[in-house]
Amino acid sequence: MTMIDYTVYLVTDQFNLSEDEFLKVIEEAIKGGCTIVQLREKTSSTRDFYNLAVKVKEITSKYDVPLIINDRLDIAQAVDAEGVHLGQTDMPCDIARSILGDDKIIGITTTTYQEATEAVKQGADYLGVGTLIPTDTKKDAELITKEDLELIRDNIKIPKVGIGGIKEHNTREIIEENKFDGVAVVSAIMLSDNPQQTSQNFYKLVKG
Amino acid sequence: MTMIDYTVYLVTDQFNLSEDEFLKVIEEAIKGGCTIVQLREKTSSTRDFYNLAVKVKEITSKYDVPLIINDRLDIAQAVDAEGVHLGQTDMPCDIARSILGDDKIIGITTTTYQEATEAVKQGADYLGVGTLIPTDTKKDAELITKEDLELIRDNIKIPKVGIGGIKEHNTREIIEENKFDGVAVVSAIMLSDNPQQTSQNFYKLVKG
Repeated sequence: MTMIDYTVYLVTDQFNLSEDEFLKVIEEAIKGGCTIVQLREKTSSTRDFYNLAVKVKEITSKYDVPLIINDRLDIAQAVDAEGVHLGQTDMPCDIARSILGDDKIIGITTTTYQEATEAVKQGADYLGVGTLIPTDTKKDAELITKEDLELIRDNIKIPKVGIGGIKEHNTREIIEENKFDGVAVVSAIMLSDNPQQTSQNFYKLVKG
Repeated sequence: MTMIDYTVYLVTDQFNLSEDEFLKVIEEAIKGGCTIVQLREKTSSTRDFYNLAVKVKEITSKYDVPLIINDRLDIAQAVDAEGVHLGQTDMPCDIARSILGDDKIIGITTTTYQEATEAVKQGADYLGVGTLIPTDTKKDAELITKEDLELIRDNIKIPKVGIGGIKEHNTREIIEENKFDGVAVVSAIMLSDNPQQTSQNFYKLVKG
């Protein structure tokens, strides 16, 4: 597998965007410095998810940025996405690996150090670590403790991205404290008036 | 692929059953004469769906009855189910075929003759034809017209099961009118006081 750049990891959310606006935000974000895109769709039918994923894949392929599909291995396979991102209520990591093989990226959401060590053991390629800060995007998301954050920072060697409540103003501090390889951002980019500029700002902040 | 027996095609619905009750109904139905099982879960998380599918697969494997997973190719792959059943808002049939290969069964719900011919063209192994009769299980389901039923009966050569509102009292008439290979049954078996006896009755009715 080629090296993946996790610096600015855009997690999509349609919010109230039209499909055209949604796709435009993704493209602008990539132009600005977003290095990897996760398509997250929780409500649509498989067909709608598939059709949207085809369109997003066209954009990410054009700019040679990896596309990660949230939860759904079948959608990832259908559009030949570069990988999947799995939460703790999604497909078990080891089963996903056996289906997708070694060439696909598998990321796992981890809210505890134990989940993180388990994910590594099961063959995860990277971790999404959080939720760091309460956020409107995922209201019921479990917050990670300071102690678990430190254990993950000091003991987990695979790439890690922080997620949850990350904005431009706190990015530098979050990166320095946790030694993350990147930041996962939802609303700060999806709802930005200028996703290209915002992504560029995040890129510079993460790179320090 | 081995020949599939579509005579009594149980489509699951949890209704208000506990998991133990649910699994017991499936096993009893198979003992009575149910020849194929489709696991349909519309609301649970991927992990819950996967965990339940593992348990159902243990039962179907024990009795050597094929297990078909509704909608989710990833779940089918994860538990090595014999196939998937896809509605018109699920994964396109041809894409599903390219992911699953030729050894897995793909069934397609068709409500019109046009959908049926398209499904055959895309490599479907069998059709679920309906909705025949309005039903409480799928209240918003589209009814198939008499004209389309006749066109399908006279022109579609792959196996076909009728679905929607099939009870013991109307099974014989439905089979004779439409030349179906079997009947897909949800509530009549899932909510039966004696799923084994009910399945046996359906088997005899279909076989005539």
